[in-house]
Amino acid sequence: MLETVAPARWAEPWDNPGLQIGSPNQEIKKIFSSLDPTLKALMSASKAHAQVLFTHHPLIFKPLSRFRTDAFPGNVITEAARRGIAIVAAHTNLDAAPGGINDILAGLLGLTNVEVLKAVDAAEGAGLGRIGNLPDPASLPSVAKTVRKILGTADIRAVGERDRLIRRLAVVGGSGGSLVSLACEKGADLLLTGDVGHHVALEAEASGIALIDGGHFHSEKTAFKVFAKNLETLLRSKGWEIQIETDEGEVDPLWVCNG
Amino acid sequence: MLETVAPARWAEPWDNPGLQIGSPNQEIKKIFSSLDPTLKALMSASKAHAQVLFTHHPLIFKPLSRFRTDAFPGNVITEAARRGIAIVAAHTNLDAAPGGINDILAGLLGLTNVEVLKAVDAAEGAGLGRIGNLPDPASLPSVAKTVRKILGTADIRAVGERDRLIRRLAVVGGSGGSLVSLACEKGADLLLTGDVGHHVALEAEASGIALIDGGHFHSEKTAFKVFAKNLETLLRSKGWEIQIETDEGEVDPLWVCNG
Amino acid sequence: MLETVAPARWAEPWDNPGLQIGSPNQEIKKIFSSLDPTLKALMSASKAHAQVLFTHHPLIFKPLSRFRTDAFPGNVITEAARRGIAIVAAHTNLDAAPGGINDILAGLLGLTNVEVLKAVDAAEGAGLGRIGNLPDPASLPSVAKTVRKILGTADIRAVGERDRLIRRLAVVGGSGGSLVSLACEKGADLLLTGDVGHHVALEAEASGIALIDGGHFHSEKTAFKVFAKNLETLLRSKGWEIQIETDEGEVDPLWVCNG
Amino acid sequence: MLETVAPARWAEPWDNPGLQIGSPNQEIKKIFSSLDPTLKALMSASKAHAQVLFTHHPLIFKPLSRFRTDAFPGNVITEAARRGIAIVAAHTNLDAAPGGINDILAGLLGLTNVEVLKAVDAAEGAGLGRIGNLPDPASLPSVAKTVRKILGTADIRAVGERDRLIRRLAVVGGSGGSLVSLACEKGADLLLTGDVGHHVALEAEASGIALIDGGHFHSEKTAFKVFAKNLETLLRSKGWEIQIETDEGEVDPLWVCNG
Amino acid sequence: MLETVAPARWAEPWDNPGLQIGSPNQEIKKIFSSLDPTLKALMSASKAHAQVLFTHHPLIFKPLSRFRTDAFPGNVITEAARRGIAIVAAHTNLDAAPGGINDILAGLLGLTNVEVLKAVDAAEGAGLGRIGNLPDPASLPSVAKTVRKILGTADIRAVGERDRLIRRLAVVGGSGGSLVSLACEKGADLLLTGDVGHHVALEAEASGIALIDGGHFHSEKTAFKVFAKNLETLLRSKGWEIQIETDEGEVDPLWVCNG
Amino acid sequence: MLETVAPARWAEPWDNPGLQIGSPNQEIKKIFSSLDPTLKALMSASKAHAQVLFTHHPLIFKPLSRFRTDAFPGNVITEAARRGIAIVAAHTNLDAAPGGINDILAGLLGLTNVEVLKAVDAAEGAGLGRIGNLPDPASLPSVAKTVRKILGTADIRAVGERDRLIRRLAVVGGSGGSLVSLACEKGADLLLTGDVGHHVALEAEASGIALIDGGHFHSEKTAFKVFAKNLETLLRSKGWEIQIETDEGEVDPLWVCNG
Repeated sequence: MLETVAPARWAEPWDNPGLQIGSPNQEIKKIFSSLDPTLKALMSASKAHAQVLFTHHPLIFKPLSRFRTDAFPGNVITEAARRGIAIVAAHTNLDAAPGGINDILAGLLGLTNVEVLKAVDAAEGAGLGRIGNLPDPASLPSVAKTVRKILGTADIRAVGERDRLIRRLAVVGGSGGSLVSLACEKGADLLLTGDVGHHVALEAEASGIALIDGGHFHSEKTAFKVFAKNLETLLRSKGWEIQIETDEGEVDPLWVCNG
Repeated sequence: MLETVAPARWAEPWDNPGLQIGSPNQEIKKIFSSLDPTLKALMSASKAHAQVLFTHHPLIFKPLSRFRTDAFPGNVITEAARRGIAIVAAHTNLDAAPGGINDILAGLLGLTNVEVLKAVDAAEGAGLGRIGNLPDPASLPSVAKTVRKILGTADIRAVGERDRLIRRLAVVGGSGGSLVSLACEKGADLLLTGDVGHHVALEAEASGIALIDGGHFHSEKTAFKVFAKNLETLLRSKGWEIQIETDEGEVDPLWVCNG
Repeated sequence: MLETVAPARWAEPWDNPGLQIGSPNQEIKKIFSSLDPTLKALMSASKAHAQVLFTHHPLIFKPLSRFRTDAFPGNVITEAARRGIAIVAAHTNLDAAPGGINDILAGLLGLTNVEVLKAVDAAEGAGLGRIGNLPDPASLPSVAKTVRKILGTADIRAVGERDRLIRRLAVVGGSGGSLVSLACEKGADLLLTGDVGHHVALEAEASGIALIDGGHFHSEKTAFKVFAKNLETLLRSKGWEIQIETDEGEVDPLWVCNG
Repeated sequence: MLETVAPARWAEPWDNPGLQIGSPNQEIKKIFSSLDPTLKALMSASKAHAQVLFTHHPLIFKPLSRFRTDAFPGNVITEAARRGIAIVAAHTNLDAAPGGINDILAGLLGLTNVEVLKAVDAAEGAGLGRIGNLPDPASLPSVAKTVRKILGTADIRAVGERDRLIRRLAVVGGSGGSLVSLACEKGADLLLTGDVGHHVALEAEASGIALIDGGHFHSEKTAFKVFAKNLETLLRSKGWEIQIETDEGEVDPLWVCNG
Repeated sequence: MLETVAPARWAEPWDNPGLQIGSPNQEIKKIFSSLDPTLKALMSASKAHAQVLFTHHPLIFKPLSRFRTDAFPGNVITEAARRGIAIVAAHTNLDAAPGGINDILAGLLGLTNVEVLKAVDAAEGAGLGRIGNLPDPASLPSVAKTVRKILGTADIRAVGERDRLIRRLAVVGGSGGSLVSLACEKGADLLLTGDVGHHVALEAEASGIALIDGGHFHSEKTAFKVFAKNLETLLRSKGWEIQIETDEGEVDPLWVCNG
Repeated sequence: MLETVAPARWAEPWDNPGLQIGSPNQEIKKIFSSLDPTLKALMSASKAHAQVLFTHHPLIFKPLSRFRTDAFPGNVITEAARRGIAIVAAHTNLDAAPGGINDILAGLLGLTNVEVLKAVDAAEGAGLGRIGNLPDPASLPSVAKTVRKILGTADIRAVGERDRLIRRLAVVGGSGGSLVSLACEKGADLLLTGDVGHHVALEAEASGIALIDGGHFHSEKTAFKVFAKNLETLLRSKGWEIQIETDEGEVDPLWVCNG
């Protein structure tokens, strides 16, 4: 089913989406949906009596030739095997998909004239990031305020002049610093993404584009929750009685520590 | 312990010896020893109440980025996780080790003046294959008869002239076809190994060295059994009360079908 | 001519088919056909007064930057130069060709509904291996008996349960162990090939497909003889008066040594 | 001179330290020192009548085969050429050097029993990061408070449990996320660095080590200022009358936008 | 404009044509055209009050990560920056272009039935070298005499028999030794090019094709002058009032020293 | 024997020195010595009743996987096989050897204080090129005159100012353009080599070093003749009665064509 909504061929070459552990023949009544396949998420899925843990990030980034059952990711694999829970991920393929992470973020921001930022499959409208116009041009701090509200982020960081007027905005959920120059070329006044480091910030400053770092976790978690709801509705419309429960206990591992 | 007997640094670069799945902190009372980490071997280890399945061949040759619980090797991983059995392998490092697979084979054949065929760690006498003199020079069919008896092979194949007298013999347990030219250079009249294919046979014929294919399975299984016994004795001598049980139900997957 | 029947573009990337030594302008009255370009085969070709030694396996697998006239393959090159005999090979391109090695094997086995196992040039029906239905379903030992008769092999080895019923059979002349999983996916109950090693046997067992090792030499020699006959007929039908003589003195370098 | 304090051979393989543009024969009276070779920094150096702009980050990370005079870094190269200002960088070689960025940070934090985290040149005590004991064990928020004071950061982020007691601390100025597992192995309770992204945060959480993101800019700028002072003193002690002026107008391109 | 006449996609993969230094927005009234972007050429361009130095060879062959202002090519970059002169190159793309270097040489030699020697873009008639028939067959020394006259070379070297009659001639401006075998296959009696080394000369001798080394500098300079004139005419026909002045002071760095 | 004078380990990585075709066990009475293993040289060796053709350049530069008996180098291989003549080469290993090509050239030029230009085996004094002082400083044309006399070249080309005084000279027999910058660093006023192309000439001009192109053929042939004489003497001193005859009919394939 997922393969229809976000085919694996839309994933980046380094990515590892799809079935991480499990059998394609497993019967499914309940899916538990977390951003990350942590041990805590797996235990929550087990408590929720789910047969599948559905995550955004893959369990295995670097192929394994051995694994310890007492350390990540071997401990998650062991518990998944013991409890008979399959783990399935939809990562950059879901970022790229129409109706995926970035389309959802563009919708939450109310963007108009939305286009794909970097095409992956032009014919089907799939690609990394989206770019569109804000409903009303606004200053950088004003856009930041809106973002903080939508994403529920405690703390926003920005690059660029405070009084700059933002008309056209590019958005890349997660970690989109490598798309700064493309966003600039495509006429964006601002790129909203997460995990913005020093060299990306300097590059943006030199290129004359503003940045908002809305957080890797919050930008994706917010959109992934919406996607899970949409997927459940889609499954039901096809006659599959599958419940999707969102992991409400998952929190950003990075917390602001200004006390 | 195993790391002392056959250090991982003696393994070939493509190999994956050592802990396949499990925790270094697991308590061990019983080890079950099979040539291959098949599902059948794991189930036998479980029935034998072993905490460790000790094999010659690694479970994972090619690093995995996902695995199905209903297909090899995911099914073995799943059952090992469920049953709390660790899997540990000693492969080309054990082939190379002094007292390892090839030293044991040289001993069973009664070779004298034994040297390492291809040095891996010259200082410590580790290397692939062994080469030595037969107790008494013998014809190719006569050597084949001896090999069949020692290895318990149903069926022996050979390359070379039938009446050739064999004085010096090289032995490589498992699959040693790539060492034909080296064995020849070092003065061997015969190379005893397994998995001999057509192009290796032609190469031997052109180089003027005889070959005996004693079977990949039988050459290694015979020596691995001896090694397991020796290891048990060594462990006890160090005060470790660990029992090592050999998998007696394991058979060559290739069977002669001349009916 | 050969280029029409089995174009070099159908060869595997590592292969070296075509003219090994000689001049394209050489006049040809007689071709001597051997499976392997050994010194013995070249001498037989010379005795037969052939201008061309036509072989299945190439003379040079690994490009040479120097060669000794007293060792293979330099000795064959030297004698070919001295005697003015060209050497031409048709290897994986002939395996893949319609009417090539694998099509001939499929015909000898009486397979029906024959398809290419792994397409090389789908438009022209070229590819590695063939897959088709046995005239009548039969048990593994019964198929082995038939194979022994057709290929003239002394000794057959098999993988799989003895009482398994074989309906659909894949065949790859020579060394086809790397196609086990493909044969399995395409629904074969059995793969008939040669040079089956231990790890291929285990893979087949884990995948639930049976194997018959009919010998690299016998599977190819049998088919290559038929091909040489067919080629002679084809050449004559085009008005070329060229005789093709098969090397009847060529034997399997691997012989069963159970005495 | 710089080559003595922080030899280029201590730099990481991807780095490009040393002379970026200029002539080794240029006479030097005044050096202007900025963290980054931005156009603004170059203009400030020019206003300060410096002959050299000394920076931490190199001007050219990716080798250039052409450059536009109206875009970074071509605009900086053009203005440096026009104004006769050389640009010299000391980057990962300075991070690694004894008395370099990380040694200075360890000193500012009052660490004791300081060791190199990842050796680059063991004989000379050079290496990436430092690890040492806090003067007094403290909770994570308490350490964060100290860091905020020392680095002058507006906003600190952390990973790990709030009440965790920190005894041993690893510090890597700039972007040190790739050293999480090494810091963990070496027994650090906390790694202080900058540019901490989501996946590094998860890795730290899974490994049981705390993190403080003190900012790439602030961690390096603070230490680089101290280094410039020390370098000036060293130069004078050798009889070189060279003034080093620190760029006080340089600010973090990333600003907290919580308005 | 240049991009229309000789698009960069026709350049060889290792080449670096186009803007070397400068801004695409620079206003242009005068172009100074030299074969090589030497410091002398740049100074001449400056004296001629040109805004652009247009060269055949690129300024930067190997990407730079640093450059000295007192050594090539840093000194040229520095002076170009100081004087506000852009440098633009058209190299192998111009060699390949219809109406480019090799088409001009073919025209100067009066060749008929001219074809591309090695296609780069078959659809648009672009490719390396040209091949065509001489107006009248002539001996090698007679052709050499003509070439000396057309190119203004002091000294011609040749490979091949003196009395060989030349009918079909291949021409590759600059350094075309790698095209000897192709010229041979395409039926050329002679290849006219520059920079002919010993091994290329031997290869030509063994292949039975004659060579004339007309000089790398002279073969390209002669044609580049004609191209510059043609380009000026083309620009004017499009309404661009841009003057192109040829560098008449540029001489071959290699001079005959037979005194 | 040759292996003692110029061990193969001193050859450049791309080179192929040593036995090209033949058997190490061949009895040798006469060696015929040519610069290049052409068909003409082989025929001359045959006429001279030599058992070995000893050349500077290898027969096979690029490893062969097939060869035509009617084209180079297959025709040379065929004739060598037919006539039982071995071919042996000493190329860059001989360039590097003490007493090799470059040492001989340095001697012929009367250089003093001779050092290796680029060390290959510092301990044994082997390396590419030599550098030393002229007996008397001289102008570029005056040095060129001397070179023409020593090498017997018809035609010398040079790079650099005519009135430049040459004190220290680097010499690289054959094709030494890649050593321009090293010769410059080591303080040479002039590099004498062959096969000087346009870009090497420009590089020398920009670096301020003069060049003399004395011809690839003539620089090596002159020295190789001397080496063959020395080798013959050495062999006799060791009691080997082997005659070495120099190929006097070998000429430069490149001839000056100024008629």
